[in-house]
Amino acid sequence: MPLIIDSHAHVVLPMESYKYMAELVASRANPNFPPVLTDEGVRRAGQTIIDIMDKVGTDIQFLSPRPYMQMHSIKPAKVTALWTKHMNDLVYRSVQMFPDRFRAVAGLPQYRDSSPENCIPELEFRVKEQGFIGCLLNPDPMEGDGMPPPGLGEPFWYPLYEKLCELDVPALIHSASSCQPRESYTLKFINEESNAIISLLTSDVFERFPNLKIIVPHGGGAIPYHMGRFRAWSVRNGGEYFDDKLRRLHFDTTTYDKDALELLFKVVGADRVLFATENPGTGSAPDPKSGRAFDDLKPVIEQMEMLSAKDRENVFECNCTRLYTRFKHYKAA
Amino acid sequence: MPLIIDSHAHVVLPMESYKYMAELVASRANPNFPPVLTDEGVRRAGQTIIDIMDKVGTDIQFLSPRPYMQMHSIKPAKVTALWTKHMNDLVYRSVQMFPDRFRAVAGLPQYRDSSPENCIPELEFRVKEQGFIGCLLNPDPMEGDGMPPPGLGEPFWYPLYEKLCELDVPALIHSASSCQPRESYTLKFINEESNAIISLLTSDVFERFPNLKIIVPHGGGAIPYHMGRFRAWSVRNGGEYFDDKLRRLHFDTTTYDKDALELLFKVVGADRVLFATENPGTGSAPDPKSGRAFDDLKPVIEQMEMLSAKDRENVFECNCTRLYTRFKHYKAA
Amino acid sequence: MPLIIDSHAHVVLPMESYKYMAELVASRANPNFPPVLTDEGVRRAGQTIIDIMDKVGTDIQFLSPRPYMQMHSIKPAKVTALWTKHMNDLVYRSVQMFPDRFRAVAGLPQYRDSSPENCIPELEFRVKEQGFIGCLLNPDPMEGDGMPPPGLGEPFWYPLYEKLCELDVPALIHSASSCQPRESYTLKFINEESNAIISLLTSDVFERFPNLKIIVPHGGGAIPYHMGRFRAWSVRNGGEYFDDKLRRLHFDTTTYDKDALELLFKVVGADRVLFATENPGTGSAPDPKSGRAFDDLKPVIEQMEMLSAKDRENVFECNCTRLYTRFKHYKAA
Amino acid sequence: MPLIIDSHAHVVLPMESYKYMAELVASRANPNFPPVLTDEGVRRAGQTIIDIMDKVGTDIQFLSPRPYMQMHSIKPAKVTALWTKHMNDLVYRSVQMFPDRFRAVAGLPQYRDSSPENCIPELEFRVKEQGFIGCLLNPDPMEGDGMPPPGLGEPFWYPLYEKLCELDVPALIHSASSCQPRESYTLKFINEESNAIISLLTSDVFERFPNLKIIVPHGGGAIPYHMGRFRAWSVRNGGEYFDDKLRRLHFDTTTYDKDALELLFKVVGADRVLFATENPGTGSAPDPKSGRAFDDLKPVIEQMEMLSAKDRENVFECNCTRLYTRFKHYKAA
Amino acid sequence: MPLIIDSHAHVVLPMESYKYMAELVASRANPNFPPVLTDEGVRRAGQTIIDIMDKVGTDIQFLSPRPYMQMHSIKPAKVTALWTKHMNDLVYRSVQMFPDRFRAVAGLPQYRDSSPENCIPELEFRVKEQGFIGCLLNPDPMEGDGMPPPGLGEPFWYPLYEKLCELDVPALIHSASSCQPRESYTLKFINEESNAIISLLTSDVFERFPNLKIIVPHGGGAIPYHMGRFRAWSVRNGGEYFDDKLRRLHFDTTTYDKDALELLFKVVGADRVLFATENPGTGSAPDPKSGRAFDDLKPVIEQMEMLSAKDRENVFECNCTRLYTRFKHYKAA
Amino acid sequence: MPLIIDSHAHVVLPMESYKYMAELVASRANPNFPPVLTDEGVRRAGQTIIDIMDKVGTDIQFLSPRPYMQMHSIKPAKVTALWTKHMNDLVYRSVQMFPDRFRAVAGLPQYRDSSPENCIPELEFRVKEQGFIGCLLNPDPMEGDGMPPPGLGEPFWYPLYEKLCELDVPALIHSASSCQPRESYTLKFINEESNAIISLLTSDVFERFPNLKIIVPHGGGAIPYHMGRFRAWSVRNGGEYFDDKLRRLHFDTTTYDKDALELLFKVVGADRVLFATENPGTGSAPDPKSGRAFDDLKPVIEQMEMLSAKDRENVFECNCTRLYTRFKHYKAA
Repeated sequence: MPLIIDSHAHVVLPMESYKYMAELVASRANPNFPPVLTDEGVRRAGQTIIDIMDKVGTDIQFLSPRPYMQMHSIKPAKVTALWTKHMNDLVYRSVQMFPDRFRAVAGLPQYRDSSPENCIPELEFRVKEQGFIGCLLNPDPMEGDGMPPPGLGEPFWYPLYEKLCELDVPALIHSASSCQPRESYTLKFINEESNAIISLLTSDVFERFPNLKIIVPHGGGAIPYHMGRFRAWSVRNGGEYFDDKLRRLHFDTTTYDKDALELLFKVVGADRVLFATENPGTGSAPDPKSGRAFDDLKPVIEQMEMLSAKDRENVFECNCTRLYTRFKHYKAA
Repeated sequence: MPLIIDSHAHVVLPMESYKYMAELVASRANPNFPPVLTDEGVRRAGQTIIDIMDKVGTDIQFLSPRPYMQMHSIKPAKVTALWTKHMNDLVYRSVQMFPDRFRAVAGLPQYRDSSPENCIPELEFRVKEQGFIGCLLNPDPMEGDGMPPPGLGEPFWYPLYEKLCELDVPALIHSASSCQPRESYTLKFINEESNAIISLLTSDVFERFPNLKIIVPHGGGAIPYHMGRFRAWSVRNGGEYFDDKLRRLHFDTTTYDKDALELLFKVVGADRVLFATENPGTGSAPDPKSGRAFDDLKPVIEQMEMLSAKDRENVFECNCTRLYTRFKHYKAA
Repeated sequence: MPLIIDSHAHVVLPMESYKYMAELVASRANPNFPPVLTDEGVRRAGQTIIDIMDKVGTDIQFLSPRPYMQMHSIKPAKVTALWTKHMNDLVYRSVQMFPDRFRAVAGLPQYRDSSPENCIPELEFRVKEQGFIGCLLNPDPMEGDGMPPPGLGEPFWYPLYEKLCELDVPALIHSASSCQPRESYTLKFINEESNAIISLLTSDVFERFPNLKIIVPHGGGAIPYHMGRFRAWSVRNGGEYFDDKLRRLHFDTTTYDKDALELLFKVVGADRVLFATENPGTGSAPDPKSGRAFDDLKPVIEQMEMLSAKDRENVFECNCTRLYTRFKHYKAA
Repeated sequence: MPLIIDSHAHVVLPMESYKYMAELVASRANPNFPPVLTDEGVRRAGQTIIDIMDKVGTDIQFLSPRPYMQMHSIKPAKVTALWTKHMNDLVYRSVQMFPDRFRAVAGLPQYRDSSPENCIPELEFRVKEQGFIGCLLNPDPMEGDGMPPPGLGEPFWYPLYEKLCELDVPALIHSASSCQPRESYTLKFINEESNAIISLLTSDVFERFPNLKIIVPHGGGAIPYHMGRFRAWSVRNGGEYFDDKLRRLHFDTTTYDKDALELLFKVVGADRVLFATENPGTGSAPDPKSGRAFDDLKPVIEQMEMLSAKDRENVFECNCTRLYTRFKHYKAA
Repeated sequence: MPLIIDSHAHVVLPMESYKYMAELVASRANPNFPPVLTDEGVRRAGQTIIDIMDKVGTDIQFLSPRPYMQMHSIKPAKVTALWTKHMNDLVYRSVQMFPDRFRAVAGLPQYRDSSPENCIPELEFRVKEQGFIGCLLNPDPMEGDGMPPPGLGEPFWYPLYEKLCELDVPALIHSASSCQPRESYTLKFINEESNAIISLLTSDVFERFPNLKIIVPHGGGAIPYHMGRFRAWSVRNGGEYFDDKLRRLHFDTTTYDKDALELLFKVVGADRVLFATENPGTGSAPDPKSGRAFDDLKPVIEQMEMLSAKDRENVFECNCTRLYTRFKHYKAA
Repeated sequence: MPLIIDSHAHVVLPMESYKYMAELVASRANPNFPPVLTDEGVRRAGQTIIDIMDKVGTDIQFLSPRPYMQMHSIKPAKVTALWTKHMNDLVYRSVQMFPDRFRAVAGLPQYRDSSPENCIPELEFRVKEQGFIGCLLNPDPMEGDGMPPPGLGEPFWYPLYEKLCELDVPALIHSASSCQPRESYTLKFINEESNAIISLLTSDVFERFPNLKIIVPHGGGAIPYHMGRFRAWSVRNGGEYFDDKLRRLHFDTTTYDKDALELLFKVVGADRVLFATENPGTGSAPDPKSGRAFDDLKPVIEQMEMLSAKDRENVFECNCTRLYTRFKHYKAA
């Protein structure tokens, strides 16, 4: 039986964290209120998740800050700096409290179109001092409020890539919110993932940083559904076949639909997909057809005929542990 | 014994309101989460205030949304629209639950440099349908993030003034937050109050709207301390003496220092000042000198030798009840 | 045998049109050069398409201006106004010259964030005077160069919807180019189609305009691949099931991949999908696996086991003729 | 008898300087007209001030450029560069002509949000070559026309602070004009002084630059009137008591009201306040109550019962001479 | 002997006007200082001009505000509003004082890209109540600080044209200053005149307003020197010959060079050119070659062989009196 | 007989270049289409010019990219980078194909307000590797869409001037298009040439770069027609006489009018003017008066009585060969 690792999940916020965020944003961090995070609050929030994990059969979750709440574009920069710190503290304390059930993935204090260099100290501290094993990466910290920074294939991002390689931690692509009234954050996620994939695959980033590990969640945005378009494009421009290029990336299963998941496996292969649910989150609503929650994906994958036992082991455990080299199996402890 | 009316106080937020605000801001109101406001939450928040009131001897408080949390400049407009509604609902339910102890003062859904006309339906609904007796008025809903709207003396604000007069409700000047890192919201309050006074008193607003009732809290910003400057200016420009002009406005005692309050009484007269504490709030910290909280102003005023018994009655009760004509005395009930 | 109608195709530009565009853009339309469009140029361009149609077995194509060349954001407005007129002239003359093989779909002179009201005269002229049967609609005429106009669900677009209903012509959603270096126009198409669908389906546009006909090409952007996400969301918000909502829209087959097309048919039903290839265009490159061009979709659909004969007839002909009521069958002529 | 030093006064402009300014602004310094400054003009302007000094009993004045005319935000930078030079020349020539009665305080060619580094050559030249003894410092050279530079507590200002310490000259905080129609420059002064104090006192500037000498004129903006607010805040945040922090700064008496001055002395102590009148200036209008001009402050201070003889000596002379170490007593000459 | 009318000249400013301007700009008109204009100041300024007129033999001058000092782009609008009023008052009082020697031409309170409708009351008042006979018109009141308003051929300007026709007063094209450091105001004049001519002549303004009278000073900008370029252009676009179009406009002689003037007369004809010198002004410097001032144009024109006696009469007097119908000959008085 | 060198002419674009430009702009260079330039296309375009040259008697033309099509302000920078490269390739191949008749002058990939340093590699490559003999220089690559870069007299341009001197190649001032609807590119050329001359002549550029060679085409913009204005100005400011300053520059004859050309020769001297026609171009329309094309300037100059035989030789050949030192006479070959 493989270990069931939910590689993409986000903290549940204790009430005191909501209060802190509200105060921080409302005051624009001046004055900045001292955050309060009680053991009781951390425990209750962690336990909420563990109850869900137990119900759906997840052994361990990789916890990161809740992405839509990253506040990367709120002026001034101090807001996101303090908030990111608070969220990473929450992640850390949750893992400290429940070391068998959680691993820590860091948020980064990205700010609008500033260089990601400002994120390196936080990343380094969390990984080296506190055992975090990966991080989120937001391709549009402007959150749609003005010209976004260069695409992920551009030199703008190299300082961060360098550090990611040096620390050997994967980055999980995840945008935050959207200031454009017509685009909900949930849709922004998908659009940004498509942008991220195409920008990376039309660049030489993986030649420059061969050890860079990038995970595109939510089944890879729109790309696996539009292979015809991009295959034709890449044939016309010569060079590598698009399907091969795509396999430089990793993906996860947070797309809540069996048909879509089958398409994903078919397109990128079962060895490039990590099991993940973001549970509790977007998918945590009952599917009137199945009676189960949309994000209860373990049975969906277990029943997929196209996957072999080996495939399933890869998806549930091995793809993830191969990628997250800093993950230390708790059974060993 | 006069009734002790604290004419300027703000709601304490139940935890569920912080959560709602955090979600609303983070999602930029798309999608917008349904707010949750439980009787239990409202009751606990209200009781927190009442315990304080009982301790310091306040009979009744006028409750309004917490100003620094008004979010008037966060894009898009839907954020402040939904949040203002939620806060006014909280105020209303608090008053419904504790009708002896609270009266309701509305927040307005002002948005950046939009005309205040969009606030009229909310104001009208709260006053006519729910018995609110006054409202807040933010002179800079841009919150420092770009050119502010015209000063309070300008035609931009007439539609709102017209409605305030028609409804016969006072407006309490109160800015929100500040996006300029160098200016905390608490200082912004003071600066905006100074701006408000000078813009109003150098305009013909009170000629056009003789029944308009404006309260400038926090002892009137910087103005009573700078009478020399403005007296000289008004002498040089001819016209009415500045001290007389100033008496078209009303003020309150939320300035937490006996010397400052004495200056205020001396400058504007005890008949223009309303008792107020914003308790709990900025002043709720223990004064190491007196041993009492800074905002425990009742004994301070009671011991002021410069005030007569009649003055004190005016300050604690009558100035307020004369101004807030929609206040209905609960003892009569 | 159904008629094979390729409902989504774009003109091939005669060399003289490229020259006109280059001069128009370079001069920013001041002075504006008189366009030149020779019979010979029109004929050669049209024949190029017909040769392709004959090769792949298409009976008739609906021709519109080439979308990525719409120039909706180039300042000043006169550029796109003149260029749209030229392109619609080219479409018209192509149809006049080859009435058996083409039908005309108009481009609109949308300009940045201006109201689409400026497009109504052109639309009306083309439909009423020249027999055009539909039009393109660009949800982001800013082309990514600043805050986009409100989403397609917003009142901003009502004047155009009203006219579309009055004329009874469908609108084919199609963005133009993208000024953001990280987002190619071909990817922008997909992102904008996702935005369009979600904005329309979370609005009351179809209640207000029950006869509005909207076609989302390229298999509906990312949405059919992300049904789990949006089903969960719509379950959580109550109201109609997302799959049912989605069926208020129409889709086409320009997605060049059999697996993706099968997912599309499964999700929206064979009665909501129009056959279309944009040939020649993005998909016109040889698939090294099949040996055929990616956009040679007729055999792909004919061999799809999941479709019945009736389904295929709908897809190739009837869905289209039901929707495009101004299409007059040329066999009847 | 102490020397009566009016430590804060501004030049009276000869007509030829008005003409130069008008031409400079109107031409946007292109072409830039050669300034004209005649001995006769300088003499007449200087004598105007001396006549006033003699009338009110001032021995010596520290002259600086007239602040509201600093033109720090007018585009392009050449305007303020040339104008500041002209004004400093006028100050210098006035002191040369009347060495017994004036000392020179420099204006700085600050420009919008440019680093103050561009001001260092002018400051150095005036102090080292021409014997200037202090300078003005404008916390908002944007003059309200866009996002102001960082607060005075931020590293943005360090290069200037370093030079001020090296030269051992005090800086007198003084904003210029305001482009926001609702805020007159006279009110802007007060608001900016409040901002300056709070930004400095919540920073570590005085730890980094222990010898930095900052004078906040006009009685310290709004702060001494709002001690309750800031005491409570600083108690809540721990650390030094606000009254103690405030004594790191120096203040002057340009606030034209006896009650306000008494509050100032009470709050900051008579050893932190410099005598100053800005005469002729804002306060130069007859007080209908006293019959004297508002800015005739010498008798006001002399008659203040709360001040001892020693206090008065400090206020009129010693506080000033201690601070302005480059002041050389003319009696010694 | 014709009357020598210098149809384009500007007031000399009394010192008190420079002071007023300096104070107005420095204070951004808040507070706005009351202007002072003494009879003595007006008289001295007027006499300065009359002395020059007598020296060079000018009978009468048309006085308007000094163009480079119009301040049309300084924020806020109140600055130019008050300044224009002051300048027009000065013009008016100069004419009142010296009715034999001056006529009045008004400045307009144009402001940045605001519609010129705001200028109509001032124009009407000056013409109807005070006998002004013409006005200045600035094609770029943005003064180069951002996108200029539409060209003079566009509907933006129609409201003003309508009023000009109704009042039957000519407009003299004259830009103000330039905020672009690379473009002095004196060069800006020339560039704007070229823009004005081409915008007007490629529009249908003179078909819409056949009685509109436009004078382009400074010899018509660059256009008469570039006839080859514009003739070719207008031949290529068909329609009227460019030389004929150009004669819808009027020109004046303020170009200070005999060769240039001869080219002007040759190109537009002696019946379209008004004598003018702007003396004292740009041309008031001694020509080292002739020994006379550059702007002493009367002898230059008198000695031009290409002009007949009739031509000279037209240039010196009749072209002007035909155009300025509100000019009333003072000899008749 | 002098060689007839047309020193200022632009390529005729093959149809394939128009297509490339249209695709490049429409796609905003993402993806960027591979350019196509066939021998046949180059030959046909070149022959078109040669036929004209033969007809009007030109021996050799200096070819550069067509200026109004330089696209210097279209976002993003990649558009102009790729287009400039394509145009320079076309120039190069034209010269390679017709070495007796053409010489190559390079376009530069200037971009908005970026430093011209980015142009140095392209310039160096073309001159050193491909034998280009000069380049174009656009003083406003913003094309009127925002604040232009500093004037040509400013340090902003020094890096380019340094390289021009090092390579000993002249720069031909030539702006591109204009985004301001009121200013056609053809008029923009003239305005920018005036700006260029005045900015250079009021700077110390020629003192810093004594070997810098600048040609101002189109007869020098407006300046030779406005000598009076600038002579007066330079007399008033002292220093060198304006006529002498002007002779540091070089000019060409592309102004299509005999009277204007005579004025030019008179003002700057026959030794500073290069023969040039830009044929085919703006002047290629039949003059209804002469029956010849406006740009057929050879006979115009040959018949000018004011020019000596030596003058004509200078104009047609020697001024040019002296300036373009990299021109190698083909007769020698």
